Amino acid sequence: MIVDCHGHYTTAPKGLWDWRKAQLNERISFRAEPRISDDEIRESLETAQLKLQRERGSDVTFFSPRAGSMEHHVGDASVSMAWSRVCNDLIHRVCSLYPKNFAPVCQLPQSPGVSPANCVAELERCVKEMGFIGCNLNPDPSGGYWKDLPLTDRFWYPIYEKMVELDVPAMVHVSSSCNPAFHFTGAHYINADTTAFMQFLTSDLFKDFPTLRFVIPHGGGAVPYHWGRYRGIAQDMGRPPLKELLLNNVYFDTCVYHQPGIDLLLKVIPVENILFASEMVGAVRGVDPESGHYYDDTKRYIDNSALDPEAKRKIFQENARRVYPRWKPSAG
Amino acid sequence: MIVDCHGHYTTAPKGLWDWRKAQLNERISFRAEPRISDDEIRESLETAQLKLQRERGSDVTFFSPRAGSMEHHVGDASVSMAWSRVCNDLIHRVCSLYPKNFAPVCQLPQSPGVSPANCVAELERCVKEMGFIGCNLNPDPSGGYWKDLPLTDRFWYPIYEKMVELDVPAMVHVSSSCNPAFHFTGAHYINADTTAFMQFLTSDLFKDFPTLRFVIPHGGGAVPYHWGRYRGIAQDMGRPPLKELLLNNVYFDTCVYHQPGIDLLLKVIPVENILFASEMVGAVRGVDPESGHYYDDTKRYIDNSALDPEAKRKIFQENARRVYPRWKPSAG
Repeated sequence: MIVDCHGHYTTAPKGLWDWRKAQLNERISFRAEPRISDDEIRESLETAQLKLQRERGSDVTFFSPRAGSMEHHVGDASVSMAWSRVCNDLIHRVCSLYPKNFAPVCQLPQSPGVSPANCVAELERCVKEMGFIGCNLNPDPSGGYWKDLPLTDRFWYPIYEKMVELDVPAMVHVSSSCNPAFHFTGAHYINADTTAFMQFLTSDLFKDFPTLRFVIPHGGGAVPYHWGRYRGIAQDMGRPPLKELLLNNVYFDTCVYHQPGIDLLLKVIPVENILFASEMVGAVRGVDPESGHYYDDTKRYIDNSALDPEAKRKIFQENARRVYPRWKPSAG
Repeated sequence: MIVDCHGHYTTAPKGLWDWRKAQLNERISFRAEPRISDDEIRESLETAQLKLQRERGSDVTFFSPRAGSMEHHVGDASVSMAWSRVCNDLIHRVCSLYPKNFAPVCQLPQSPGVSPANCVAELERCVKEMGFIGCNLNPDPSGGYWKDLPLTDRFWYPIYEKMVELDVPAMVHVSSSCNPAFHFTGAHYINADTTAFMQFLTSDLFKDFPTLRFVIPHGGGAVPYHWGRYRGIAQDMGRPPLKELLLNNVYFDTCVYHQPGIDLLLKVIPVENILFASEMVGAVRGVDPESGHYYDDTKRYIDNSALDPEAKRKIFQENARRVYPRWKPSAG
């Protein structure tokens, strides 16, 4: 069984985006539901994520709302709350229609400067009432201005306490950038991954929360490429070795879109800390003329790597079970 | 001959930092000179950069003021101007004392929100009066808040016009971070490299300036690790292939502090676009227990790579001559 731990509903039907537009124009009640039929949901997936699962040979995707549309910086906390609920409810519908193919991961109703305590109820609703298995946590709700405190500050502890209690991990994932310096998928996403890792490196967060778990997406940003730099910085700071300091709590996905990048990741990061993912349909949608295959068909890079079958099994499935213990393969 | 294109005067004598303190406390005239003897300069280098050049077998370092101390966000444009002049004058003294070992690269008197036209005179003074061969350009003078426009905006064109006229490249290098989200050498530096590359990717800057040249330090941030992502994003945007779009103007240094990272860099980036560098004495100062050698002894990684001698010669010397044409080896 091949588990893809990182997929967003980038192809959600028009009814969702209509709802969002109406919300931002204050033309609807926050309690209204988007007008989306089950058939529209099926169509949006059959021609995209489900088709690619079949073609590429993955079995299940941990599925969350479109990251770029979380837009925690738009409107206030109540806008973010209503939008998050609508997005999460839609993910729940997807996973109810296709329980074998998708497992639900939620968006949190974050808002710049607002305590993450404000997200606890929605996380609890998703996990307890709708069977969600994880969440996406945005380290920069200001959308590219980095106005909130580092992830290691006590500011964030209320959501960590709930994550630990519910035994769900968070993927560290920013949303779109409203800072013209940062292209969203080309700079902001990758920078956020690197930034979060470095925040963890300098703190004792995991002494306070020994079972807290984060997945850093996009292959860990710049971190594996600069693994020597990070080992060296930690050493210069008198911190414990990275393995001991972070690798019981921090995991990397495989959203790296070429063979040499994946080979580096597999070489420097322990196999127990790597989770298969493709983020399809996502940031890069074309076919690589150098390989003749989709850039984001990351399964192919793992298949082609020098790893032994046991290591591949860990990356494709076993690590995901360990990091997301609430996920149980559906008899579907 | 081995040319290290990236070194900062991190070991500058106390007199420099005393001057800076006095400047910020407004206790001296901006025209005062720091009290630093030639012997103090010699001592600060003999025990550090010069010693390491000898031990590691490099011949010359392109040498600029300490990056973390440029602090363009501190004070106003006149503070930045006075501090830049003092720092550049000191680099000139270093290079006059050791013309074989160091070639001068200047700090620019940038200031948040102030037009880079304000830097033209200092660049010209350094190049024409003191023989500087390049400059460091800070893409975020606000120190971690990214308040200025992208490097591709016309805002920056006055300094590019002067760089082209003088035929000097810029290394894209931020300074310290005053944003608590970003650790300076662990996040801000690497993020800035990634950010600058993505800015270049989305623009036609090099149509306007076909001979403008940038070195992106720290191995290009996250870029080579995500080379497939960047090729794919450019393709999705309908941009030309990266090689054609950027690689006549954008170069990467080799400040990547472990063998697998360097191996990746050498594999995915054309050898003509890679310049040897170590950034010693810099961000990482320890010995890697896995190799038994200094993390930042990057010459060792190039030596140990699979490249042929011709390719190594390009990285160690020929590319530097091409990118920094004002540099001429001193008969010393």
